[in-house]
Amino acid sequence: MQFLSDNAASVHPAIWEALRAADSPDSPYDGDALSAGLDERFAELFGRPCAVLWVATGTAANCLALASMVPPHGGVVCHEEAHIEVDEGGAPGFYLHGAKLMLASGEGAKLTPDAIRAVIDPIRDDVHQVQPHAISITQASEYGRSYLPSEIAAISDLARERGLGLHMDGARFANAVAFLGCSPSEATGDVDALSFGFIKNGGLGAEAIVFFDTGLADVARYRRKRAGHLQSKGRFMAAQLHAMLDGDVWLANARHANGAAQEIADAASERLMHPVEANELFVRCTPAEREALRGQGFAFYDWGEDAARFVTAWNTRDEDARALAKAIAAL
Amino acid sequence: MQFLSDNAASVHPAIWEALRAADSPDSPYDGDALSAGLDERFAELFGRPCAVLWVATGTAANCLALASMVPPHGGVVCHEEAHIEVDEGGAPGFYLHGAKLMLASGEGAKLTPDAIRAVIDPIRDDVHQVQPHAISITQASEYGRSYLPSEIAAISDLARERGLGLHMDGARFANAVAFLGCSPSEATGDVDALSFGFIKNGGLGAEAIVFFDTGLADVARYRRKRAGHLQSKGRFMAAQLHAMLDGDVWLANARHANGAAQEIADAASERLMHPVEANELFVRCTPAEREALRGQGFAFYDWGEDAARFVTAWNTRDEDARALAKAIAAL
Amino acid sequence: MQFLSDNAASVHPAIWEALRAADSPDSPYDGDALSAGLDERFAELFGRPCAVLWVATGTAANCLALASMVPPHGGVVCHEEAHIEVDEGGAPGFYLHGAKLMLASGEGAKLTPDAIRAVIDPIRDDVHQVQPHAISITQASEYGRSYLPSEIAAISDLARERGLGLHMDGARFANAVAFLGCSPSEATGDVDALSFGFIKNGGLGAEAIVFFDTGLADVARYRRKRAGHLQSKGRFMAAQLHAMLDGDVWLANARHANGAAQEIADAASERLMHPVEANELFVRCTPAEREALRGQGFAFYDWGEDAARFVTAWNTRDEDARALAKAIAAL
Amino acid sequence: MQFLSDNAASVHPAIWEALRAADSPDSPYDGDALSAGLDERFAELFGRPCAVLWVATGTAANCLALASMVPPHGGVVCHEEAHIEVDEGGAPGFYLHGAKLMLASGEGAKLTPDAIRAVIDPIRDDVHQVQPHAISITQASEYGRSYLPSEIAAISDLARERGLGLHMDGARFANAVAFLGCSPSEATGDVDALSFGFIKNGGLGAEAIVFFDTGLADVARYRRKRAGHLQSKGRFMAAQLHAMLDGDVWLANARHANGAAQEIADAASERLMHPVEANELFVRCTPAEREALRGQGFAFYDWGEDAARFVTAWNTRDEDARALAKAIAAL
Repeated sequence: MQFLSDNAASVHPAIWEALRAADSPDSPYDGDALSAGLDERFAELFGRPCAVLWVATGTAANCLALASMVPPHGGVVCHEEAHIEVDEGGAPGFYLHGAKLMLASGEGAKLTPDAIRAVIDPIRDDVHQVQPHAISITQASEYGRSYLPSEIAAISDLARERGLGLHMDGARFANAVAFLGCSPSEATGDVDALSFGFIKNGGLGAEAIVFFDTGLADVARYRRKRAGHLQSKGRFMAAQLHAMLDGDVWLANARHANGAAQEIADAASERLMHPVEANELFVRCTPAEREALRGQGFAFYDWGEDAARFVTAWNTRDEDARALAKAIAAL
Repeated sequence: MQFLSDNAASVHPAIWEALRAADSPDSPYDGDALSAGLDERFAELFGRPCAVLWVATGTAANCLALASMVPPHGGVVCHEEAHIEVDEGGAPGFYLHGAKLMLASGEGAKLTPDAIRAVIDPIRDDVHQVQPHAISITQASEYGRSYLPSEIAAISDLARERGLGLHMDGARFANAVAFLGCSPSEATGDVDALSFGFIKNGGLGAEAIVFFDTGLADVARYRRKRAGHLQSKGRFMAAQLHAMLDGDVWLANARHANGAAQEIADAASERLMHPVEANELFVRCTPAEREALRGQGFAFYDWGEDAARFVTAWNTRDEDARALAKAIAAL
Repeated sequence: MQFLSDNAASVHPAIWEALRAADSPDSPYDGDALSAGLDERFAELFGRPCAVLWVATGTAANCLALASMVPPHGGVVCHEEAHIEVDEGGAPGFYLHGAKLMLASGEGAKLTPDAIRAVIDPIRDDVHQVQPHAISITQASEYGRSYLPSEIAAISDLARERGLGLHMDGARFANAVAFLGCSPSEATGDVDALSFGFIKNGGLGAEAIVFFDTGLADVARYRRKRAGHLQSKGRFMAAQLHAMLDGDVWLANARHANGAAQEIADAASERLMHPVEANELFVRCTPAEREALRGQGFAFYDWGEDAARFVTAWNTRDEDARALAKAIAAL
Repeated sequence: MQFLSDNAASVHPAIWEALRAADSPDSPYDGDALSAGLDERFAELFGRPCAVLWVATGTAANCLALASMVPPHGGVVCHEEAHIEVDEGGAPGFYLHGAKLMLASGEGAKLTPDAIRAVIDPIRDDVHQVQPHAISITQASEYGRSYLPSEIAAISDLARERGLGLHMDGARFANAVAFLGCSPSEATGDVDALSFGFIKNGGLGAEAIVFFDTGLADVARYRRKRAGHLQSKGRFMAAQLHAMLDGDVWLANARHANGAAQEIADAASERLMHPVEANELFVRCTPAEREALRGQGFAFYDWGEDAARFVTAWNTRDEDARALAKAIAAL
């Protein structure tokens, strides 16, 4: 019973169908009809114009988005536990040519205007200090917390006021939308670019960079090629994104994963380190308790000395979630 | 009848089977069993130890390979029409952090020791001039020419003598092996790293970087992640490579494409700009002649004012190749 | 008798005086009064607004200027023998984060609109090819040729038409102005930034980057610090520039050097490889002739097998120039 | 009475003399006799072989040194208040091509093995996390604290054990040596490279990078040129370094500055935030007290809300130091 991560989960059948259906000749790179249809497809979803690029990983999505907003001598404010800071092997340093990540604190790996101000206000406006050019937030956060639309609005207001770009890492954006019960547009707020993740949610190998500031996409297109991310059979990338949006597979998948997480959360409520607002659970438990759970067939990661992380996925079986809930309750 | 390029050709059935077969949980990134088996699988093919990394594009393969050999202040000798120089959107500048491509001439987009010496010998050994650190050759070349093992040996001898790394861009390596009728190892020679292309040859989205200097792979692994090319469901990348090697699909596909090209070449022999040693044909023909061919349903690219480029693929239909041969003969 | 280069010539007395005069406390970096006065001082010279930054070398000046115009994924058209291409150790690759130098040909190391078009017109407007973002020309050129104002206008017209930035490497700008007999502004034309060299012309270690597109200077200021070129005792940098402009020392020095060069040129007219339009002479002569000249005490560089390069400087003694003229005439 | 900083202090007479003495023709760049003599001169001072490069700023010295040890995908452990982190405008990101600064805590801006371990031990040895490649410490620290030889030894032992390079930012190295009363070699310990600062100590515009791992200098030479820091009249750079070492001017200057600082420290002992172990004082005082001091003619920086920073220099007048001591005592 697998609760290690959603990042290696199996691929949704709709994706396989779409891939096979795309296996007829079309123009290479992003010249195919499927790629050409992405802007409109996502504009429909978000209810506003956007320009969409596919890429193979969330790291590439985040970094190409940020590189379109931040010059090499600039900085990006992000949470000190943000994926771009701790888990992307220094990719922001590469894509942004040495620009600096400026680390803010915040409960649940979420930023607030105050936390951002605490980082940027002390920066003297002189050439000796790197100046901030953008903010990056994660929806849902690295601790499975979702930003309310009002929280995003407060951050985007600050971004506008200070002339900063705003990026949203949405590796688990679908889970946030499913949790919030709002529209994708409300869950996004006024950001300039969204890394809209599909791979953790049943995709094979395609994420979308959604540029709401569509001018940024023009630069990002050159940077994508320059980064070796412009695949020649791009129709298979676009096909995955269409398949996820068609019939709202993305949302159904996220709802399923969230539902499983909630079931476990209900059983673990007194042990939770963070409210469960997506598909991740951080559960206080002793080494002995973890051993017991593993003995019952549950796979998961330790989270420090005294906790465990459980992640549900689009394909987590109901009985597995139920079993885990029971097992935790019985600890 | 499609002769535009092999880069968007359909995907070989063996790939689809392998992808579906890989759709069961395994460790993420390259921690899965299929990825773990690549070194051995390719070592078997080449008859010598190697370390293998999958990536999604030839551009990423070339640049990660070169970045493992060349420091930011160094240079890479390549042909002035090499893909890395003219068709990768400046990716070498990005991956190599501003290192310089040093352009050599040579018939058929092939380098020779003399052509390389003509570039590097005039370079003064001082800090005012960028010093060469590696050579990159393309097998088969951008004009569909294949290097003989003896030609590669002459270049690798020079590389060793001058302390330069040697990289082979093998976007159409399979076609070169099929043409040369030698072993993969002979077609590679003593290079440090090979970008072994599969996508143009029936793959979906996976190329292999084969490091014969296996120490280079240690650095390349970090750089791959840093470039956002470490896909989380890496088993689907590895599966493609295994599927191509199993039963020598790669070689059968290349032989088929080369065979089609030879059939056309025989009919166009007096019009050929380059000997046909892989699956590309560069055919002298007037605008009127090209219009006539297009009128008969053949799709291909103009090559300057007075020529056309035809590329065959693993799935070029025999009747299409025959038809094109006839049509050209009848011009 | 030294004709090797002007780049290590001694320092003009006015510079020494200015340096000593500047040795009283003032604000660090470029916060001092002398630095603050540069914009106005150069605006006066050029008769139009400009923003001026001092740096220690021509390489830094060229690269900071270009980095303000060209994004990492872009390109710079320059002559294939331009200093930035052949003699700056790959500095443009570093400062421009991997942007590409696009090499054009042209007599006397000078560009023409046709030569530039020959480079940029074939570039497809797609992401596979690096797009040009700026042009860099050298006044006087690497072969001591000066651009006429009309020639610069033709190039700047092309730059505007294509939306390209225009940079002038003026390592020997003073010599060009002296030769052309026009105003500094006319010798500059409508460029966005000029690297105005002083070191070869009697300075110690300060060049000026003159931004006529003054907005570019805002970015360049951050980049200068980031490159470690913001000296803390910047007043000594600014002092050198003021000293050179005061009383037109820069122009007198250049006239002297040019005069010496013309005297030699008159004696060598049949041997000249290039018209002498600044302070450099490229003189055809055999190895035996060069040996003879060296035997008479003249120091200079070989220029290939069959020529020699002679450079005069602000402090070339009249008798030395006369002696060299005679010696060449007597060959 | 100036206590703002030592970074804009006037230039020592010995420097002026040496500069004038160097104003005769010699080879350009670092081909002159003075530059050629640096390795031996510093080897004599340190009692062991070293390779020495001059550069114009401490930022360039630090970054060129670190770039010789750390690949673009690596990291450097430094104090969170280190100059390279907070005051160099992102220069490490530029010179190290996006490598990461890994921030450690520690009293007085000094690192300890424990503080370093707290940063590097949690780093998983996988490609998702940037791996440390070097440590950088500052002697004397940003709070004017000096590392004892035993403290450096503990850090260098850790560096060796973990295979990390070790760099010392010695912007105020002379002050540390003067305070410690030990040899330069003892104050340096087993580091791979030292940025030996002279500018704050009476120089005009030359610092030394002293490579004890002399092989690193070979790469650094190329990088220095590539960064536009290879000045053509390099003899004036080398001359400054020789002038500082000759007759131990560097040490006398530092002793003077330290002496002045100690005199003030004695009067401010109860207000000191950090022990005074070089030439900087961080003194607790209210805004009203600061106003009072400024009213008496003392210039200095606020240090947050409740403190002031005073820096003495090689040319701080005894009477000024005495006056400040009295004034603080009288607060």
